[in-house]
Amino acid sequence: MTPHDAIQSFAKTLENLEKCMDKAGEHAKERAFDVDVLAQARLAPDQFSFVQQVQSACDQAKYAAAYLSGKPAPSHPDTEQTFAELRERIRKCTGFLATLQEKDFAGAEERKVAPPWLGGRWLSGHDYLVQVAVPNFFFHVTMAYAILRHNGVKLGKMDYIGALSTREG
Amino acid sequence: MTPHDAIQSFAKTLENLEKCMDKAGEHAKERAFDVDVLAQARLAPDQFSFVQQVQSACDQAKYAAAYLSGKPAPSHPDTEQTFAELRERIRKCTGFLATLQEKDFAGAEERKVAPPWLGGRWLSGHDYLVQVAVPNFFFHVTMAYAILRHNGVKLGKMDYIGALSTREG
Repeated sequence: MTPHDAIQSFAKTLENLEKCMDKAGEHAKERAFDVDVLAQARLAPDQFSFVQQVQSACDQAKYAAAYLSGKPAPSHPDTEQTFAELRERIRKCTGFLATLQEKDFAGAEERKVAPPWLGGRWLSGHDYLVQVAVPNFFFHVTMAYAILRHNGVKLGKMDYIGALSTREG
Repeated sequence: MTPHDAIQSFAKTLENLEKCMDKAGEHAKERAFDVDVLAQARLAPDQFSFVQQVQSACDQAKYAAAYLSGKPAPSHPDTEQTFAELRERIRKCTGFLATLQEKDFAGAEERKVAPPWLGGRWLSGHDYLVQVAVPNFFFHVTMAYAILRHNGVKLGKMDYIGALSTREG
């Protein structure tokens, strides 16, 4: 699983998250409520809302792509309040991810990754991918899914997993 | 991120999950309820309970380790009902994971992985790791965390992420 594989998996999972948001929209329509009510939903009062979970998932993917490729991360301010705005955020993120190819990640695992929140310390690109980017990315997408699921949206795990490259023979 | 890196990350994350269960135990004690009430908690009536999320996380890790190394997966029947039994399940799983070393995963990405639920179709070891094992494993651990968090257990994301191999200089 190369860094580029991980970034492509993040992009696919963000697209799956948008499909979960489609299902939230259908659910809201059926039940005659404004889907944007769910944007502020959360599982605990001191936990991130749906909006923040989606923003965080996007940022985990964006920063992993940037740090591991050595390209600057585009700025995506956390201003979203509605599902429509969150869809735009997801597309800005996946648009950036799509600009990067396998060759952009040459030497990624040996890079020195020093995000500001490490306070001057650093992780190798390898350790950043394994210990930070992968578990954090899937955490925030799953939490966004969990908030919708808890609010009655008809989702199953395959909505989150998406299509598989199965073969026959 | 080699298959062995992924399996080691799963083992670490299961250990972190046990620490989250320790915090659930402290919370239950403070609030004077039986922690095993949380074993049956779930976020939606038609979703897996905490017990099932932990069993599923363990199985994702176990089967990934078995399929990618070509070793037989030990049988761990889904009989757990209590936190004590779930801890035992986690330890059986991490015990199996610890038996596998980097060399056991030679050629893992080219293996043909044909779990019964694919109904005769198969995935390459590479695609199984990227598309199935990693997103599913972190999904179930995060869902277990979410159930505890929703029930008031004092958890933060670093309880799930655990220690990082940061360096200085």
